[in-house]
Amino acid sequence: MTEVIKVSTPQHTCAVNVTPQVRDVVRKSGVSEGLCLIYVPHTTACVFINEGADPDVVKDILYMLEKLVPWSDSGYDHAEGNSAAHIRSSIIGNSRIVPLSNGDLILGTWESIFLAEFDGPRQRKVVVKVIKED
Amino acid sequence: MTEVIKVSTPQHTCAVNVTPQVRDVVRKSGVSEGLCLIYVPHTTACVFINEGADPDVVKDILYMLEKLVPWSDSGYDHAEGNSAAHIRSSIIGNSRIVPLSNGDLILGTWESIFLAEFDGPRQRKVVVKVIKED
Amino acid sequence: MTEVIKVSTPQHTCAVNVTPQVRDVVRKSGVSEGLCLIYVPHTTACVFINEGADPDVVKDILYMLEKLVPWSDSGYDHAEGNSAAHIRSSIIGNSRIVPLSNGDLILGTWESIFLAEFDGPRQRKVVVKVIKED
Repeated sequence: MTEVIKVSTPQHTCAVNVTPQVRDVVRKSGVSEGLCLIYVPHTTACVFINEGADPDVVKDILYMLEKLVPWSDSGYDHAEGNSAAHIRSSIIGNSRIVPLSNGDLILGTWESIFLAEFDGPRQRKVVVKVIKED
Repeated sequence: MTEVIKVSTPQHTCAVNVTPQVRDVVRKSGVSEGLCLIYVPHTTACVFINEGADPDVVKDILYMLEKLVPWSDSGYDHAEGNSAAHIRSSIIGNSRIVPLSNGDLILGTWESIFLAEFDGPRQRKVVVKVIKED
Repeated sequence: MTEVIKVSTPQHTCAVNVTPQVRDVVRKSGVSEGLCLIYVPHTTACVFINEGADPDVVKDILYMLEKLVPWSDSGYDHAEGNSAAHIRSSIIGNSRIVPLSNGDLILGTWESIFLAEFDGPRQRKVVVKVIKED
């Protein structure tokens, strides 16, 4: 089962909690045991899982990515000027995979799944695929 | 087939080789061809695969993560004070997936699978799921 | 279905677009819906997905990895002298997974799949595994 979630990223750099939409796809699939892939087919975005309870955690993740990979750097060659967004996307990665148990995502108590975009605001697609175990 | 491995991380920052336990789960599953997901549901931990023969490789990986993402930074806002652990976890990622062939993990000669924790010591869970190919 | 692709990495640090070979494996598998794992069993290499249209994007990704994780650093201990390659490999990760739809990889318009090597030139293996959905 595959569904495409549409996500608005309201700021230039931001992370959106997509856990409720991913959980809905898992429940609708009726799959009890298996895997759930959360995947973005966009080169300036990424997916990660971290704490969702205190928004300062995600803020600090985005802050450090900006510090490590600054928007402007005299060594960048890409003419569109958004190299930093592409680099941050590949450092974090464009997907995460979550095991399923008893029809739900195995996530820690404070964990959420985030789509981050580094060159927004945009409308982004997140592909959610549920794979059933034999 | 899913098993939860319990791992002790004895230092504040450390990586533990979990390859033997993962290999045991694969063997017990009896699956010959498929995938093995190694997944941590913890926001200050991560999973990676790299050289296990010379422990200095893992030491150098942890050293560089500490250098890139220092424990203290005046820009962090998260009140618990462990933002660096969350950031390093999301940069490396909270899972790895290994293909199976002839009932064993496809790993390079020197490769091992590591759980790293950046805010220990802790008792951590690693979810190992084996998916059989049709 | 599993195939091993052989890839030459002609420079010390370089990224090779392996999308055509991965697409061939998917088509030969005959699988319409499922997942495709692209995996390197080498500790100084990695796999990532980003823009393939303008080669400057990949150039800038490799440039920033070199800047963040320099080849020489007085803190490295690994005797082989290639710690930077191991570290960059683990930061990016040794695999990517791509969902399949209608027998093809779900990739954005400008997206390609790259094998990067940080301690070449080498001959590298990329394991491509196609998993069929029930």
